[in-house]
Amino acid sequence: MLPSHPEPLVTAPAETALLSLLLTEGPLSRVDLARRTGLSATAITKAARPLIEDGYLHELPPQRTAPGAGRPVNPLAVTPDRQFFAGVKISDDTVYGVLCDLRATTRATARRPLAARDPEAVSALMADLVEELLDADPLHRARTRHLGIAVSGDVDRAAGRVRYSTRPDWQDVPLAEAAARATGLAVTVENDVKALTAAEHWFGEGTGTEDFALVCIGAGIGAGLVVNGRLLPGAYGVAGEVGHISVDPAGPRCACGSTGCVESIASTSAILDTVRRTTGRPDLDFPAVVELARSGDPAARDAFARAGRAIGTGIAALVNLFGPERVAVTGEGLDTYDLFGAHIQVAYTADAFRSAGRCRLTLRPLAWDDWARGAAVVGIQTLFG
Amino acid sequence: MLPSHPEPLVTAPAETALLSLLLTEGPLSRVDLARRTGLSATAITKAARPLIEDGYLHELPPQRTAPGAGRPVNPLAVTPDRQFFAGVKISDDTVYGVLCDLRATTRATARRPLAARDPEAVSALMADLVEELLDADPLHRARTRHLGIAVSGDVDRAAGRVRYSTRPDWQDVPLAEAAARATGLAVTVENDVKALTAAEHWFGEGTGTEDFALVCIGAGIGAGLVVNGRLLPGAYGVAGEVGHISVDPAGPRCACGSTGCVESIASTSAILDTVRRTTGRPDLDFPAVVELARSGDPAARDAFARAGRAIGTGIAALVNLFGPERVAVTGEGLDTYDLFGAHIQVAYTADAFRSAGRCRLTLRPLAWDDWARGAAVVGIQTLFG
Ligand SMILES: [Zn+2]
Ligand SMILES: [Zn+2]
Repeated sequence: MLPSHPEPLVTAPAETALLSLLLTEGPLSRVDLARRTGLSATAITKAARPLIEDGYLHELPPQRTAPGAGRPVNPLAVTPDRQFFAGVKISDDTVYGVLCDLRATTRATARRPLAARDPEAVSALMADLVEELLDADPLHRARTRHLGIAVSGDVDRAAGRVRYSTRPDWQDVPLAEAAARATGLAVTVENDVKALTAAEHWFGEGTGTEDFALVCIGAGIGAGLVVNGRLLPGAYGVAGEVGHISVDPAGPRCACGSTGCVESIASTSAILDTVRRTTGRPDLDFPAVVELARSGDPAARDAFARAGRAIGTGIAALVNLFGPERVAVTGEGLDTYDLFGAHIQVAYTADAFRSAGRCRLTLRPLAWDDWARGAAVVGIQTLFG
Repeated sequence: MLPSHPEPLVTAPAETALLSLLLTEGPLSRVDLARRTGLSATAITKAARPLIEDGYLHELPPQRTAPGAGRPVNPLAVTPDRQFFAGVKISDDTVYGVLCDLRATTRATARRPLAARDPEAVSALMADLVEELLDADPLHRARTRHLGIAVSGDVDRAAGRVRYSTRPDWQDVPLAEAAARATGLAVTVENDVKALTAAEHWFGEGTGTEDFALVCIGAGIGAGLVVNGRLLPGAYGVAGEVGHISVDPAGPRCACGSTGCVESIASTSAILDTVRRTTGRPDLDFPAVVELARSGDPAARDAFARAGRAIGTGIAALVNLFGPERVAVTGEGLDTYDLFGAHIQVAYTADAFRSAGRCRLTLRPLAWDDWARGAAVVGIQTLFG
C-alpha cells in the first residue's frame, strides 16, 4: 500500500495568494499583503487564521513604523520549521540529497555514489539517503512527508514516471511508485530543469516576477519558462528548448538532427570536440581544454568564445519572443564562466531587440546540491491545490 | 466630451466562460457547455439567463440526438446581429474598414486612400469610412458602439496612444481620443499583429487552443503569442519578435543593429536587396523580382529559398521555446507563397525539436480587410471585463 499523496494545505484563492506571497517574499505587514494580493484586510485576517492555527504562519511583534503612523501593525511570517521537504537529484554517478524547510533553506545535505542503475536499487539508495537527512534532527523525521526527485530528460510528473532519460539510461520507469515504497514518503518526480526553475522562480533570481526564464548550460542546454506565474509545459510536452534553437546554418550537425543548434556549439562535449579538432589533439579531456584556454591557447579560447556567443544569441531569441522580466543563467557549465561569460553578455546585448533587452541577465555557478534543492521546492509547491 | 468606453457585458467568471465559448465555438448543447467550462448545468442556466434576456444568446430548437437518449436538449447559440463592431486598419497609403457581427463575420467593407497623415485628418477619414459602413444597413447604426483601430508599431492600448509607428510616421499620437471625437464611438487602438492574433485565436486557426502563435511575414516579420489563452505582452512591452531572432552570424546587418535577423533575410525589402545585388540590376522592383523568380531565374529563386529557410528556422525557434498547439503563418508576404512556402515547411520540420514539431503549421494569404477585421475583433473582446 502506497502512502497517499498529502492533501494540499491550501486551495482557496485567498489562502493561496497569502501563503505563496509570504513564502517567497515574507515577512510582510497586513497592509502590504492587502496591497499585493488585492484582498481586503478582513479577507487577509480570515485567510491567515487557519494557517496561524496550523502553525504555518505566525505574527511578528508589533512594529510601529513612525510616530503618529496609526496603530501598530503585526507583520505575518512563515514559520520555516513547520514542515520539511526532502529533495533528491539523480545524476550520472551520484545521488544528491537535501532537506529544506518551508522557505527552501537547506537544513541538511547528503550524497551517495550511484552503483546499480535499476529503479529498485536507486530507490533503496534514495531511502538510505533520506534516512540520513531525517536523522540529522529529530524535528526532521516528525515533519517531513514529501520527497521530490529531479531527473534529467522527459518526465511525466502527473503519472510519476520517467518516460526517457539518458542519465541514468531509463525508459518508462515508474519511479514515484518505487521511491514511495522505499521511503514511506509521498513522492513527486520532475524534470531537473523544471524543478530548478521552480526553485529560482520562488526562492531565487525570479522571486516576485510573473515572467521569468532559467537557462541551464553544461552537458545539455535547456531552459524553464515561467509565463504569468506558471511554468510553460508545451502543448506537446516540449518547451524551453533553447539548446535546440538553430543559430548558425554553417554550424555543426546536432544530435537532434538539426544544424547549428546552440547545444551543438556550446555544450561541454561540443566545446571539447571543437578543441580536439582545431588543435589536432584527440587525447584532450574537458579539464585539459579548460586549462588550455585559461593558459591563453587561441584555439581553445576561440571555442569558448563561439560557445558564449551561441548561448547569448539563444537567450536573446528567448527574450525577443517572450519578453521576460529577468533571466537567470546557471548550470555546471558556469564553472568556466571566466572563459565565456563576457561573450554571452555581448551577444545577448547585440541581439536583444529594443526594450526587450532591459531584461536583466544574471549568471551564477550551480552546485549539485542546488538541483536537489529544486526537487525539494517541487515538494513545497504541492502545498498548493 | 468623449463617449465613455462601454461597460463590459460580462465580468463574472461563469458568464465569461459561457459567452467566450459560444462566441468562438458555438452553438453548443448545455451538456457540452457544462463539460467544456467545468460548470454545473444549473450554473450554465443561471449564467445564460441575462444574456438571453439581453438578446446576446438564444436557444435553438430542441434536438433529440438519438432515440432513447433522454430528454431533448436546447443548444445555446450567439445571436450574431445583436451587436456590430467597426474595425479599421491604417496602412501606408490606405485606410481599410470593415463592420463585423458578434461572431466576427464581415458584413460590410469600405476603404479610402490616405492623403494627409496628421491624426486629425486620419480621424476625419476614418469617421467618413465608418459612416459608409454604418449606412450599409439600418441595424448597423443602431447596434454599433465600438471602433477598433489597428496600426503597425508600438501601441499603448490602455492609453489609446500610438507611441511609435513608421506607417504612417507617428510618434506619441493620442489616436483613440481623436478618433472617438470624430466618430462618436468608443475606440480601442491596438498593434496590428496583436489584433490579427486575437482574430485568429478566437475566430480562425487558433480557435479552441490555449497556446497559439500567429506569424506575419511581409514588409516586416513579427508574431503574436497566446499562452494560457492570453496574448503575451512582454514584461517590457516587447514579445513575439520572431523577425529579430538572429539565425545566421554570416547574414546581413539588420536595421535593429543585430546581424542575420530573420527580417534582414526574409522581409520583402531584404529579398529585393538580395536580388538587386546578386543580379547586378538595381533597377528591379519587387514585382519584377517575383516575376524573375517565377520565370526560373536562379538568383531570384535562391533569394526566396533563403528567405523561406530563415522564416522556417525562426518559427522552429518559437515552437521549441513555447511549444504552442498550432501556428498560423500569414501576411502579404504569402502572396509569394509559391516561391518560399516549401522552404518554410522544410526548415521548420528540420529544426523543430522532437514532439514540439507535432505543432501544425498552416500558411494562408492575407487580405488587407483581414487586418481591419482583427481590429473589429479587439472590439468584440471588450465585451469581457
Ligand atoms: Zn539540436
Ligand atoms: Zn533585427
